[in-house]
Amino acid sequence: MEDLTLHQYHNSGNCYKIRLAAALLNIEITLEDYDLVKGESRTPEFLSKVSSNGSVPVLQIGNTFLPESGAALNYIAAGSHLVPKDRLQYAEMLRWMFFEQYQIEPTVGSLRFWTRKLGLENLDEAKKGQVNAKRQAGSAALDVMEQHLSGRRFFVREKFSLADVALFGYTHVSEQGDFDLSKWPNVKAWCERVKEQPGYVPIGNENWS
Amino acid sequence: MEDLTLHQYHNSGNCYKIRLAAALLNIEITLEDYDLVKGESRTPEFLSKVSSNGSVPVLQIGNTFLPESGAALNYIAAGSHLVPKDRLQYAEMLRWMFFEQYQIEPTVGSLRFWTRKLGLENLDEAKKGQVNAKRQAGSAALDVMEQHLSGRRFFVREKFSLADVALFGYTHVSEQGDFDLSKWPNVKAWCERVKEQPGYVPIGNENWS
Repeated sequence: MEDLTLHQYHNSGNCYKIRLAAALLNIEITLEDYDLVKGESRTPEFLSKVSSNGSVPVLQIGNTFLPESGAALNYIAAGSHLVPKDRLQYAEMLRWMFFEQYQIEPTVGSLRFWTRKLGLENLDEAKKGQVNAKRQAGSAALDVMEQHLSGRRFFVREKFSLADVALFGYTHVSEQGDFDLSKWPNVKAWCERVKEQPGYVPIGNENWS
Repeated sequence: MEDLTLHQYHNSGNCYKIRLAAALLNIEITLEDYDLVKGESRTPEFLSKVSSNGSVPVLQIGNTFLPESGAALNYIAAGSHLVPKDRLQYAEMLRWMFFEQYQIEPTVGSLRFWTRKLGLENLDEAKKGQVNAKRQAGSAALDVMEQHLSGRRFFVREKFSLADVALFGYTHVSEQGDFDLSKWPNVKAWCERVKEQPGYVPIGNENWS
């Protein structure tokens, strides 16, 4: 594989997913850090060179820049044991990866960032007005996960896959956004199973300053 | 392939994408319609049988129910000319599919539904408060597409793919949510190129009642 560089904000769950998958697969990735709050992903240089979308993660593969965590995960894990070979199981893996980006990241993920990094009391009015809706939608998404995990160890046909990596990114730190995972015991137990995977690395987000 | 049934709301761009990909690949799909506003995707039967997530599209493959349009697109198009075989190009296709679900569907797609189906004047306060932010975010997403299409015919390496199908779903009807595509001429021209694909079918959304 060509040299890989992850343009990232370390505390982002989307960035962590890629570090986690790389660790599980023993793939080496160079990290390049940006502070989103300081606007480091929106400088003219970043926008012209790394991503016109002004966000991280972006996986750099040689001279190619690949935004979107879901795309990066599929790139680095292609052909590995984290990706089902069966057509339907592969589609089911993608199902949970799209679900995660649509229903977990913008809810559980946003509230964690707003709570831990920005401070709920510092939010502008537009964001403040979204807190309740995000909390409800995040809870509903966790309900869907809870129900699916009833009697299952992992999300796709009992086999650990990128679906678990993607969902784990924000879910396992949802308490940092004031979601109490004891309300979703299947989800909580599944988080522990993910942590038992050989090669697992923690998010390592102690420093939020 | 097993029998395919698309559980759908006909005017939804997410549902249309799947019909479009199936038409382009000459794959037969049975349609089963639900009226979202009447809550037909949230009945106990739907939630227990079709999808606990309470939304469409859901692609039924034999006895398996697969939610998420991006997953369904990958399932039906696997191995076809709509899916690049190259590892990096495949990841780039997914990049645009994730981008679309995160930045086009919740903005351009939502505003179209709110404008055409619900009526902006009928929105509750929470939704009304999101209209401006969605319009800004949708415009920014169209800017990213416009820039990427500068000098390109399609989104991934000059070859029509699922990325184009996914992005086309809501983008080509963005004027129904009061986005004026003449501001994004590359996007507008790309829409015309998609319509020229052999097997193309229109969304057919004349009836919004």
